[in-house]
Amino acid sequence: MRFARVAYSGGIHTATPAGEGRIQLEDGRLLDEDQVVWLPPVELGTVIALGLNYADHAKELSFAAQDEPLVFFKGPGAVIGHRGQTRRPGDAAFMHYECELAVIIGRAGRNISRDAAMDHVIGYSVANDYAIRDYLENWYRPNFRVKNRDTCTALGPWLVEAADVPDPANLALRTTVNGKQTQSGNTRDLVFSIPVLIEYLSSFMTLSVGDVILTGTPEGVVDVQPGDEVVTEIEGVGRLVNYLVADDVFGR
Amino acid sequence: MRFARVAYSGGIHTATPAGEGRIQLEDGRLLDEDQVVWLPPVELGTVIALGLNYADHAKELSFAAQDEPLVFFKGPGAVIGHRGQTRRPGDAAFMHYECELAVIIGRAGRNISRDAAMDHVIGYSVANDYAIRDYLENWYRPNFRVKNRDTCTALGPWLVEAADVPDPANLALRTTVNGKQTQSGNTRDLVFSIPVLIEYLSSFMTLSVGDVILTGTPEGVVDVQPGDEVVTEIEGVGRLVNYLVADDVFGR
Repeated sequence: MRFARVAYSGGIHTATPAGEGRIQLEDGRLLDEDQVVWLPPVELGTVIALGLNYADHAKELSFAAQDEPLVFFKGPGAVIGHRGQTRRPGDAAFMHYECELAVIIGRAGRNISRDAAMDHVIGYSVANDYAIRDYLENWYRPNFRVKNRDTCTALGPWLVEAADVPDPANLALRTTVNGKQTQSGNTRDLVFSIPVLIEYLSSFMTLSVGDVILTGTPEGVVDVQPGDEVVTEIEGVGRLVNYLVADDVFGR
Repeated sequence: MRFARVAYSGGIHTATPAGEGRIQLEDGRLLDEDQVVWLPPVELGTVIALGLNYADHAKELSFAAQDEPLVFFKGPGAVIGHRGQTRRPGDAAFMHYECELAVIIGRAGRNISRDAAMDHVIGYSVANDYAIRDYLENWYRPNFRVKNRDTCTALGPWLVEAADVPDPANLALRTTVNGKQTQSGNTRDLVFSIPVLIEYLSSFMTLSVGDVILTGTPEGVVDVQPGDEVVTEIEGVGRLVNYLVADDVFGR
């Protein structure tokens, strides 16, 4: 099964796919997908992101691959849902999308072994984790200005239950910008696998229900501009649509 | 006025000081301060911490002071309240406390000017933001293992309303370990002042109600061990008590 969280008619609802661009609310109402506001598919706990977790992308950014996971946080204000607008800062020279498999924790734990790790995963989603390249100094600091602007992490549309993703270590990823493919990869090329990441993180912090791990992106990132439609897509997990707008339309 | 959030008898309550180690719940009940579990004094939004925001502490760690604020996140799992137990990892050779003035946002905003910044502050609290020195690599990466272990950020006891802290830029800070003073400083020595931090952060992310900014610590950090009582205290804001325990009492 797969589930979305959507806002409609004054409330927040759980929705399931109903075919042909339609969704169904938990009370049975059928709606077109553009009649609702899509929220991130889970109520978010800690959102953890990985830097340079595909060797080809690390090379693309001219960084050596790291010898342990490079992890950083997303604040709650950074995350939006499917069909949302991401705001491109007016002073950025290079802003790129990043298609990433999002792993959603459904059972809390600390000191989880890699062998037990997948029992803590309730499901998966698709993320588009933008970076403002201008502010990137080195791989030690994927800092707030690079990685935590408002609206710069899209997540959705669906939480796809783990049972429906039999092999998360072999999923094709791709990104299209205005319909043209610019990025492709496969989760088999993750430097640190999902079980290893869960073991690593839970060795020093409790992973809780609703925590999300964004597992990194493969090579193929290009600058995007206001007006662009960016679609990040993962085989069997979903197709996340995002729209770039200029930050200045909201005033300075 | 000053307020705490405490858990007592199956519920969460607002409490005010009632003198001599006693508190009063909003319904009038008078309790001893050790009859309740003290929670962080606000429901937390994004918790932002500053690195090296006192020049003397930066020097103590042999780092050059940075030319813009060094900011990083706390995840929700890192934060505990007054009289809580902080767990010291068994493999750490050096773990130090950090007494910090915590600034609590009460009005949301983006692109807040430094002149308007203080209108967004609802009040202040005391933080003790532990660091596991072993894992500190350089100032670019105050990473998860240094700065986001479970229980390693204590906050409280009170939210003291801004009106009761007439000059937050001139407050004495001090830390005692088992009753002996080890750290002292004054917020007048902040490298980046509260208004400048609010202007900086809100230039790229919305600050929301319940967000907390931990403004950094002065020099005087020493290693602490299981069994130690660490008290961080800020003039006119509060006295935060914290107990160090060995992480391994919870099992590995």
